[in-house]
Amino acid sequence: MPFVRIDALGGPERLDALGRAVHQALQETIGIPPDDHFQVLTGHDGATRALRHGDYLGVHRDEGVVYVSVTLRAGRPAERKRALYRRIAELAHAYAGTEPRNVFVVLTENAPVDWSLGHGLAQYDPGPQDGPAQSPGNGGAPDP
Amino acid sequence: MPFVRIDALGGPERLDALGRAVHQALQETIGIPPDDHFQVLTGHDGATRALRHGDYLGVHRDEGVVYVSVTLRAGRPAERKRALYRRIAELAHAYAGTEPRNVFVVLTENAPVDWSLGHGLAQYDPGPQDGPAQSPGNGGAPDP
Amino acid sequence: MPFVRIDALGGPERLDALGRAVHQALQETIGIPPDDHFQVLTGHDGATRALRHGDYLGVHRDEGVVYVSVTLRAGRPAERKRALYRRIAELAHAYAGTEPRNVFVVLTENAPVDWSLGHGLAQYDPGPQDGPAQSPGNGGAPDP
Repeated sequence: MPFVRIDALGGPERLDALGRAVHQALQETIGIPPDDHFQVLTGHDGATRALRHGDYLGVHRDEGVVYVSVTLRAGRPAERKRALYRRIAELAHAYAGTEPRNVFVVLTENAPVDWSLGHGLAQYDPGPQDGPAQSPGNGGAPDP
Repeated sequence: MPFVRIDALGGPERLDALGRAVHQALQETIGIPPDDHFQVLTGHDGATRALRHGDYLGVHRDEGVVYVSVTLRAGRPAERKRALYRRIAELAHAYAGTEPRNVFVVLTENAPVDWSLGHGLAQYDPGPQDGPAQSPGNGGAPDP
Repeated sequence: MPFVRIDALGGPERLDALGRAVHQALQETIGIPPDDHFQVLTGHDGATRALRHGDYLGVHRDEGVVYVSVTLRAGRPAERKRALYRRIAELAHAYAGTEPRNVFVVLTENAPVDWSLGHGLAQYDPGPQDGPAQSPGNGGAPDP
């Protein structure tokens, strides 16, 4: 379910490494399964696709900055979100060489009925009439 | 009002077809007028602009995957959202040949005051002092 | 803290001018400090990266349309948001020559714990165990 956008300078290798970092961190801290993998990775060129950053909160950022925005259903406890941030920063460093100071994460929450994960169904809140139609998946069951 | 982002592999023709599918589905199920049309369409190349997907919930996805993210004001009933998902999937198939299993939709809701649709005004919640300034449009009136 | 995405047709100069307009407007109306600067600027080519727009609410839009989406913490009063829209429209005109009718802004709000501004910390809601770790910055203090 989490829908992830990653924006960073660089090419396919860096984007791939950052995508893997975020995906593994979501699995380890939020408990999503490995196939719950939905990402849009955008490599910026610093010109027509550009990033801006400042040193807000005393954190020195540079061209290595990575913006990670995650949409997910409401309800994750604060301490899991904090664990997620820690783990993304660790793995972005391990996989992409990105320094933790350059990792920016923002979450946006919504409701179960706000998702359709294929086949035109609202798998997390299928409603009475859609109940049978989505039975082959594990439809309405909340993931961990 | 809905603000739509569509991310998919492919060129202008596919993006245009997907954009038309989503826009028509919003009109038919949420009741927006035809000129309430605000979309950012991004074609990915699989390298510097890349998508990731998994088979979560038993849905087999492939390179045809389409990410549709829609921001809209809170208040649409669940059954309209479900109708929206069904119709997007149908029309994405009809117009772009995209299989319904590959259509991923996520909604994010906000408040009337969170929109400015031009001229620097908050048309859905203009406040006392802006009332006269936006009278040429149908300003504060909620759309269907 | 605000995280800003700007999508518009055009090249680096136009994007830069629009980015400056939005950043200055946020400082003047919402009260963020100058280094609280987090933007993703995307220039569209009208083909593989395309925008769609309509004349909804009687506002005539054209290829100069600019989509500004801002994620920020909940709690800004309505009149500050309205001031923000006015100022973005004014400065987009002054800096980029973009007509106010073409400036579209949408806000999405979240919670303090939904942000990590570097170092893997949740600076706005660090929790008991992270308190000391973020003391070098002004961590948990809400900005104006």
